Amino acid sequence: MKNIKHILSLAVAIGFAAAAEAQGIVSPEINADGTVTFRYPAPRATKVQLSGQFLSGNLDMTRDAEGVWSVTTPPVTPDIYPYNFVVDGITANDPNNPFLFPNERFKGNLLDMPSTPPLIHSQQDVPHGRVSYRWYHSEQLDLERPLVIYTPPGYDPQGEAKYPVLYLIHGMTDTHETWFKVGRVNDILDNLIAQGRAKPMIVVMPYANAAPALMARNGTAPGDVLGTDLFTRELIREIVPWTERNYRAEGSVAGRAVAGFSLGGRQTLAAGLGHPEVFSHVCAFAPAIWGEGMAESFDRDYAPAAQLRNLKLLWISCGVDDGLYAGSQALEGVLKSKRIRYQTLYTPGGHTWMNCRIYLTEISQRLFK
Amino acid sequence: MKNIKHILSLAVAIGFAAAAEAQGIVSPEINADGTVTFRYPAPRATKVQLSGQFLSGNLDMTRDAEGVWSVTTPPVTPDIYPYNFVVDGITANDPNNPFLFPNERFKGNLLDMPSTPPLIHSQQDVPHGRVSYRWYHSEQLDLERPLVIYTPPGYDPQGEAKYPVLYLIHGMTDTHETWFKVGRVNDILDNLIAQGRAKPMIVVMPYANAAPALMARNGTAPGDVLGTDLFTRELIREIVPWTERNYRAEGSVAGRAVAGFSLGGRQTLAAGLGHPEVFSHVCAFAPAIWGEGMAESFDRDYAPAAQLRNLKLLWISCGVDDGLYAGSQALEGVLKSKRIRYQTLYTPGGHTWMNCRIYLTEISQRLFK
Repeated sequence: MKNIKHILSLAVAIGFAAAAEAQGIVSPEINADGTVTFRYPAPRATKVQLSGQFLSGNLDMTRDAEGVWSVTTPPVTPDIYPYNFVVDGITANDPNNPFLFPNERFKGNLLDMPSTPPLIHSQQDVPHGRVSYRWYHSEQLDLERPLVIYTPPGYDPQGEAKYPVLYLIHGMTDTHETWFKVGRVNDILDNLIAQGRAKPMIVVMPYANAAPALMARNGTAPGDVLGTDLFTRELIREIVPWTERNYRAEGSVAGRAVAGFSLGGRQTLAAGLGHPEVFSHVCAFAPAIWGEGMAESFDRDYAPAAQLRNLKLLWISCGVDDGLYAGSQALEGVLKSKRIRYQTLYTPGGHTWMNCRIYLTEISQRLFK
Repeated sequence: MKNIKHILSLAVAIGFAAAAEAQGIVSPEINADGTVTFRYPAPRATKVQLSGQFLSGNLDMTRDAEGVWSVTTPPVTPDIYPYNFVVDGITANDPNNPFLFPNERFKGNLLDMPSTPPLIHSQQDVPHGRVSYRWYHSEQLDLERPLVIYTPPGYDPQGEAKYPVLYLIHGMTDTHETWFKVGRVNDILDNLIAQGRAKPMIVVMPYANAAPALMARNGTAPGDVLGTDLFTRELIREIVPWTERNYRAEGSVAGRAVAGFSLGGRQTLAAGLGHPEVFSHVCAFAPAIWGEGMAESFDRDYAPAAQLRNLKLLWISCGVDDGLYAGSQALEGVLKSKRIRYQTLYTPGGHTWMNCRIYLTEISQRLFK
């Protein structure tokens, strides 16, 4: 009892009313039957709903005598899903769930629905690589910029072994942390490497959107509104050389891959198809490209087809319900007409990170082989 | 115009209404006169306020014709502050600010108010250490557990140089990420090391609260409700040995320090004063200790005074408005009565991470010297 009293006095000392309010509330709570109970403390609210990418529509929640709203979902298919509450029309986080979706523009929580046997993105008792936050000084931007870098188990910065490198780019409004926190790069690669299904590799995750930092310093956004040219230059002139100076990277075209999701898929194509002298593996996940004029822009934006026919892997993935699916289809058409080899994987569903993890798992087993 | 159309279609593809709604809204916007404008899109809300640790009370926001609420604050003293919105009584994040406060129980954003010349926690163009996320298998918990680890610039895992290690513990409901993301350990140490004011050191930031992971697996919380004993064992039996196996750590009592905030301050005292055979530097920031019975519990909980008189540094810090200030005062009384040397730094303000960064900056210049 003394300890409980102390915990409450500590919660009050913290000064966040929410900490005291929420003390003892478990959300999300995964039940033995595969359903999930969500709880949100809001004594003054009149309507609270659960919105989640595992639901086909929002679920109404009900209020108990203490003002805690809750709902239990139908059984949820194991995966990791973004969700949030809608409280009297206002999007709100789950204050009791520390797993957040890193993004510039929205703040969802993550539901990690486990499975037996565990899914490939679940942390298991296998040798773990590490994820490092590094910072470099970008000469062209004159800014300190972050990189999140996965190195595989057994990586030795002074050893003889050299590793291939995957440069992996987030989507629009995501950050350098999204592939780590939501994409679970480290767990997927730890598990695939432990099972002998992927080659040990380094994964470099840049923050592809320099616009907020430039805006903060200069008061104006860069003219290149999609950031494709700016980031492609940053990747090729600064990030690849920095990586190869600071890591045991193979440093050859054969040992470099680029992949990305959404706007990062567009940047992947710009960097990868634009620079086959740098990258030999190019993997676009739901790339932000549109069919109109693509036959003409392809020749302008990318390297000659004769060079692209030598790529070791050109991969296109998209969800068939994704608003960007038509762009991937159009790209296929152009590639066919130019006799450039490629592979595709189209999956059910839309523009989601559930799909991104599937695509990453698939390409990781094909890279550098 | 075509690019704008594409950005909007991309925002819609993302499937988060908030992404489209919030497109183009800048929040927080730091103005040239040191005031800050906050904006929150909520067309259906009837009352929106700004709550922040740089304010003495909540500020009312006003709605524009598009349903975006805004307020401009008085000039804000440079520092990093937690804040959130209160939307019709509901705590809500700033959807346009990617800087979040990692915590199990509340989700604040951070306002990083810059200064000229820059404050010690501001990232500058100096050699940067790295921050690594590592995972180890805890034998006593039978769980994979995370560690966030700072290594200083020039750290060479195969080199001759060995480094002292600071074990740095977060507060109640914080996570292993809080000292990194809010405490800015890496920037503070990068800058102090570049200025020759701190010795290069390794900083190990554990996740001191295993209760959520144990609860998820076992369905019951550990009986040790404050987690002090459980974590002290984990630190001494698992985390220190793991660190010394995996890093170029000095591995001597003289080269080990422990510090922590709030509940982490309590755990710091339990580990540090309980085990002077392990740690020689013990730094408690606003420790969660209470005066009642402390004279008796001191002898039960900690090592004999004769041993504690040999500590190289025993440091107590607290804000004078902190609800836990009396506990630090009581500890001073007991230490005096036992003739154990200690140093204190009491600062204005309460139980805040603004104070934590001050304390970390101060102790970093005193450790291992």
